[in-house]
Amino acid sequence: MNAFKTNTLKKSTLKKSTFKKSVMHVGEMASGAKLTVPVYRYECAQTCSPADQQNKAPNVYIQANMHGAEVQGNAVIFQLLELLKHCDIQSNLTLVPYANPVACNHKNGEYTLGRFDPITGVNWNRMYHFDETVIEPFAQQNIDASAADIKANFQQLLLNQIEQKLDHNIWGLTTGQRIAYQLQRMAHQADLVLDLHTGPISSKHLYCPEYAKMSASYFDIPHTIFIPNDFDGAMDEATFCPWWSLQQTYKALGRNFVMGEDAFAKESFTVELGSQEQIDLDVAHQDALGILSYLQHKGVISGNNYTPQKMTRYGCYLKDYKALYSPMGGMVDYLAEFGKPLPAGEPLARILRMDNYCVDDSANADGSGSPLHNICLDRQVMPILHFASASVNQGTELYKVFQDYFEL
Amino acid sequence: MNAFKTNTLKKSTLKKSTFKKSVMHVGEMASGAKLTVPVYRYECAQTCSPADQQNKAPNVYIQANMHGAEVQGNAVIFQLLELLKHCDIQSNLTLVPYANPVACNHKNGEYTLGRFDPITGVNWNRMYHFDETVIEPFAQQNIDASAADIKANFQQLLLNQIEQKLDHNIWGLTTGQRIAYQLQRMAHQADLVLDLHTGPISSKHLYCPEYAKMSASYFDIPHTIFIPNDFDGAMDEATFCPWWSLQQTYKALGRNFVMGEDAFAKESFTVELGSQEQIDLDVAHQDALGILSYLQHKGVISGNNYTPQKMTRYGCYLKDYKALYSPMGGMVDYLAEFGKPLPAGEPLARILRMDNYCVDDSANADGSGSPLHNICLDRQVMPILHFASASVNQGTELYKVFQDYFEL
Amino acid sequence: MNAFKTNTLKKSTLKKSTFKKSVMHVGEMASGAKLTVPVYRYECAQTCSPADQQNKAPNVYIQANMHGAEVQGNAVIFQLLELLKHCDIQSNLTLVPYANPVACNHKNGEYTLGRFDPITGVNWNRMYHFDETVIEPFAQQNIDASAADIKANFQQLLLNQIEQKLDHNIWGLTTGQRIAYQLQRMAHQADLVLDLHTGPISSKHLYCPEYAKMSASYFDIPHTIFIPNDFDGAMDEATFCPWWSLQQTYKALGRNFVMGEDAFAKESFTVELGSQEQIDLDVAHQDALGILSYLQHKGVISGNNYTPQKMTRYGCYLKDYKALYSPMGGMVDYLAEFGKPLPAGEPLARILRMDNYCVDDSANADGSGSPLHNICLDRQVMPILHFASASVNQGTELYKVFQDYFEL
Amino acid sequence: MNAFKTNTLKKSTLKKSTFKKSVMHVGEMASGAKLTVPVYRYECAQTCSPADQQNKAPNVYIQANMHGAEVQGNAVIFQLLELLKHCDIQSNLTLVPYANPVACNHKNGEYTLGRFDPITGVNWNRMYHFDETVIEPFAQQNIDASAADIKANFQQLLLNQIEQKLDHNIWGLTTGQRIAYQLQRMAHQADLVLDLHTGPISSKHLYCPEYAKMSASYFDIPHTIFIPNDFDGAMDEATFCPWWSLQQTYKALGRNFVMGEDAFAKESFTVELGSQEQIDLDVAHQDALGILSYLQHKGVISGNNYTPQKMTRYGCYLKDYKALYSPMGGMVDYLAEFGKPLPAGEPLARILRMDNYCVDDSANADGSGSPLHNICLDRQVMPILHFASASVNQGTELYKVFQDYFEL
Repeated sequence: MNAFKTNTLKKSTLKKSTFKKSVMHVGEMASGAKLTVPVYRYECAQTCSPADQQNKAPNVYIQANMHGAEVQGNAVIFQLLELLKHCDIQSNLTLVPYANPVACNHKNGEYTLGRFDPITGVNWNRMYHFDETVIEPFAQQNIDASAADIKANFQQLLLNQIEQKLDHNIWGLTTGQRIAYQLQRMAHQADLVLDLHTGPISSKHLYCPEYAKMSASYFDIPHTIFIPNDFDGAMDEATFCPWWSLQQTYKALGRNFVMGEDAFAKESFTVELGSQEQIDLDVAHQDALGILSYLQHKGVISGNNYTPQKMTRYGCYLKDYKALYSPMGGMVDYLAEFGKPLPAGEPLARILRMDNYCVDDSANADGSGSPLHNICLDRQVMPILHFASASVNQGTELYKVFQDYFEL
Repeated sequence: MNAFKTNTLKKSTLKKSTFKKSVMHVGEMASGAKLTVPVYRYECAQTCSPADQQNKAPNVYIQANMHGAEVQGNAVIFQLLELLKHCDIQSNLTLVPYANPVACNHKNGEYTLGRFDPITGVNWNRMYHFDETVIEPFAQQNIDASAADIKANFQQLLLNQIEQKLDHNIWGLTTGQRIAYQLQRMAHQADLVLDLHTGPISSKHLYCPEYAKMSASYFDIPHTIFIPNDFDGAMDEATFCPWWSLQQTYKALGRNFVMGEDAFAKESFTVELGSQEQIDLDVAHQDALGILSYLQHKGVISGNNYTPQKMTRYGCYLKDYKALYSPMGGMVDYLAEFGKPLPAGEPLARILRMDNYCVDDSANADGSGSPLHNICLDRQVMPILHFASASVNQGTELYKVFQDYFEL
Repeated sequence: MNAFKTNTLKKSTLKKSTFKKSVMHVGEMASGAKLTVPVYRYECAQTCSPADQQNKAPNVYIQANMHGAEVQGNAVIFQLLELLKHCDIQSNLTLVPYANPVACNHKNGEYTLGRFDPITGVNWNRMYHFDETVIEPFAQQNIDASAADIKANFQQLLLNQIEQKLDHNIWGLTTGQRIAYQLQRMAHQADLVLDLHTGPISSKHLYCPEYAKMSASYFDIPHTIFIPNDFDGAMDEATFCPWWSLQQTYKALGRNFVMGEDAFAKESFTVELGSQEQIDLDVAHQDALGILSYLQHKGVISGNNYTPQKMTRYGCYLKDYKALYSPMGGMVDYLAEFGKPLPAGEPLARILRMDNYCVDDSANADGSGSPLHNICLDRQVMPILHFASASVNQGTELYKVFQDYFEL
Repeated sequence: MNAFKTNTLKKSTLKKSTFKKSVMHVGEMASGAKLTVPVYRYECAQTCSPADQQNKAPNVYIQANMHGAEVQGNAVIFQLLELLKHCDIQSNLTLVPYANPVACNHKNGEYTLGRFDPITGVNWNRMYHFDETVIEPFAQQNIDASAADIKANFQQLLLNQIEQKLDHNIWGLTTGQRIAYQLQRMAHQADLVLDLHTGPISSKHLYCPEYAKMSASYFDIPHTIFIPNDFDGAMDEATFCPWWSLQQTYKALGRNFVMGEDAFAKESFTVELGSQEQIDLDVAHQDALGILSYLQHKGVISGNNYTPQKMTRYGCYLKDYKALYSPMGGMVDYLAEFGKPLPAGEPLARILRMDNYCVDDSANADGSGSPLHNICLDRQVMPILHFASASVNQGTELYKVFQDYFEL
């Protein structure tokens, strides 16, 4: 099945880097309207001999806007394409804006309802594929294979699994799986994968696998969450979990590879670019520079034009990245600044409950019924993001914070 | 029918101003859950003799949050109540936060879907009542009545109409009418009415009837839209249109009253407090001071503590307050600042269309297919507000601007 | 501006009636996705000389699915196209399924949120154009024109107005206007217009202008609502109101035409095909036969194959077509059958209020708090449709009924 | 923490069974509105001595409407209460209609958006609690305990866990967890648990744990899905998985209990009552009779008034209960009848794609572009339910069917 309609457009500039555009068909709506995704590809001219494969710069896959309201990544891809025109690219690059056209175009009121399939409620970034049961047999069969063969064969296995899923089985696929699997097919062909997201109202932060800690400092992002080898359906996990699990299986079988190096030189990040529902092309230019800094470090582009900014970078393990759920319904005046340690007992937020406003102070001596409530924690935290609206129900996620954190 | 359950709470402070709280029942949901609205009332001690009625300070009605996402007015009512505790109040005041509990609590995704009834799509602020056909007969019948009688009788007529509507007719009322009419019943008993709203992402601005132009400068709001005597269902119109129409009818019958004075001393404003989905208690304090400045000017509170801020105030007639609809779908980088004149030809916004990104520049020599589009106008305007999300369809309202404007 | 990309496909059958398909571009989403509408056109071979224009069979425009959940009209257009293949067509026909791709594809949960623009709440069928101010000047200028010239010139005036609106003015159009005006441009070129809708859960019924009463009996639809010359933004009104107003203006100027005849032989109907969210191809075949019966009666197709079914047809004036709003929130067991007179005092529905279920009967001696409530009226009515869900708020539209009705 | 406000109402009938009503507070909305759930409780008069506990009739918990649109269970609880008035009840019964007030009252358009939290997308019936890690330690510690002690202690452990969760930990709970855990606290105190749901458009069917197969025939429900001991967050699983896991752990430790008997006499069912968005009080009466038949079989009510209907009952294992996802976008004419075997190759549905309607038959010789598509399977199945709307995207769940099934 070939879902692509290629529309090649050769660039006639002095400089070298020519991207090709194609249009990928990812679904159909009730009216028959086609859902398409634009794909921008750079294919490295010097086709390496198989022997060189090992030393080749890593291939890259970058996508944006899997969640409908998280649009800034599209602007970052725009700025990346503008900057990459003038770069000396050493490997294959694939850039995909508007990765999820259903989510991207789904409005409810003025905002974009794009975190989950509006029919089923399933989070669009929880539908990627990983079948852990293939790991052990593969390692057994390839216990003595060369590193290069392991890399090539395991990648092919992952691609075959996706093809099998997409290759119309009798019971079909959900709308989200059909989109996710087609994106994943491209991601599996890359070594470095960046999934561009945003928080609701948020600082910039990065999800990084624990083994790739060294790479986090090449992005211009002050907060990094280090995640373990647990698959929960997201693109970043779907990319590194198979390889990490394979590396660990080999280890159990007595063969040691270093995760993140050589055949296992796979890295995958979810890049949270700030707040949703916003496009800022100037900030996107800054974001693109940070990504180029990482790509240059990895040898994807040659030269030394792009270096990471000097800044204090904080890290936190996923288990210490905490969501605080509102203890009451009400209207929230968010107080805590992102990225600044908030001492124990200082309010994160004040919650207004006008329905409790009371002319007689004696009525709520215990404060339970007062019109203003400070929301505090009993420990120091570093606030990273907060909910997008002032109106919250009891149990709405108010803030996400680093509970324990450290400098990188 | 008595929809009120009063829960009086007497304030035991040194100072005088004691508000009473009651809870108004405005509807029921499918589960039987009651929809209620808190009402805060100050009743002026010195019950005037009918003869004094004319010289009495005007009664005031203030409500907030008729549109679900427009929450800042609740915080302003909180700050007003805090400040009014220490004021010498000369008339009756009614303050109503959370005026529309259906809208206020209706989430779709993280945001509040609160501009319209989610079942019917009808804008919650287009459901107030005004039956123009009662004006002419009333004027005929009261052609020689005293100003005081005209005021009292016409107010009673308006209240009777609302009562009749609410007094369960055979075919019933819509959900929104039931809420709106109960609020309107309170508004009709006041002389000054403030309906606290916000824009989407917005500067502060004020809707003011043309005849009340002098009052606009007592608010701390830099932009005022002057509106004519046209009823389109909103609270402000529902309050002043009947009186304005009555005054004009008397004029046609040969009896001259001045709109905004004496028996016709009715004023009604929609106060747009800034952006939606936000609570800021400090800004709310400032907003409350501006409202007290207006109320003090009107004699509602005695003394001279509250005076309007010095600022350049701009006015614009409603016919010159223009919405610009997006000429294309895309993702918007909003550029124009609110409240600053934007010269002709300067971009209001840039629209990103990554799907048009093209490696071959020759492909879109005419620019129609380029990835970035500047949205400009051929005349100078003053931007007042813009859409809440970067993602827009072709035809989404991008900006609202003053096309022609003047200093107050 | 030519929004059409024609894709002509000639039919190679023995019979004659060849439709051409084109694709109309009506908008763009945030991702840049194009919104398109398929248009099926039959153009009558025998191009009449202008002299014959008067006697020519009327041109026809039929559209479906302007409201997203009202899909059965698409199936009816399918069946019409299948049947028309074998008909001898005497005029131009334009058939447009999926008329509103935004509405058609907008899901919220499992259902289609398609009665109003999800961003603004405006009913998609309230956005058509009619500027009454052009009527009087036109009549003045064409006071002595021939009937044929009046027909041609007025139609051209209506088309010019639409073109002017679509021809990108500086402030743009809303999403819904852009769709509606493009549809209206096609409707203005026809003499007979059918807008295929459905009710929520509904009997088949027809909205018919009062002057076209004779035509109602040619459809196989048992209930007809006769509507006056009031424009409220709907397609049917946008089609006949201009002509009706023109005819009345001529009358006031002393020149008498008969509405519905000769130059004024314009008819426009909203056909409510039953319940929404359903496709039934067999029922659609029956519906198509009823429409062909009407078209044959009008001379659009020759022969006498299609005759209306025998049935009792009821009519009702719009003023007597009543909505009943729920007097309470609760869960509704809809009892009354459509199309059968319901005696006064018989329950339309029972409303369950489990929250009121009470073990002690004495607690609600007055019945106000009982768990079951019968909803009755004090007069006989004929139920036509009811709300789509059992869960209703206080004020939700429960039923629509004929209050006074008569046999046609 | 005592979230209950009890409002006891003693029934003054001749017969005995007196239910008490209380109101449980499960949350708060942004306006401060309280979310409450009515709870109807019957407490068995004869307080058994601990020695009798073993022989006591099982306690029962029944809830309805956890998913907002699935309302028929409320009517069934109404009919159960009406019938139970006249029964001789042998144990404690708790009945909870409107179990989820957020979901129940959340409208989007005319329908109820109630399968998932509108803010997060999380399915309301995937939020119950089960921590498998407590099983092994408990079994170790109670390896020699009496069956009665195991039952009492393990139940207390489950309750303690819920209390700990609810007992405001520092980071809070989500909106859905707060509701689910309060319901679960009641369910854990019962031996038999019925969670009343409905399908979208659906036959009646039952989810039954595999070990309770014998009980399925006591309901008047023709289709049963037998589910294994896998916890996925639903109420039924949250009730039986802990006990089943405990029984299996004991087995591994060498102590054998029979699941479903004695201390492990726990049964839990999800009862799918038919289609959503509908209330039918007469059908609810039938449904209630079927439930009483099961309860009488279990000794909850004495006598022999209630016996299961004679009908062919089919069973299917969960692994063989298949969802078919639409291979294309389009509009669906659902053809297959529920509960009747559909031969291989017979169409489940026809999908209309009017945009493909084509005047030239040669254009789609391969049928891919035809306007009508039959959806068939290559094996016989028994259709159980289908999607609620005719409009589907590519990948929407069309039908759920029994792939392999057997008579009970």
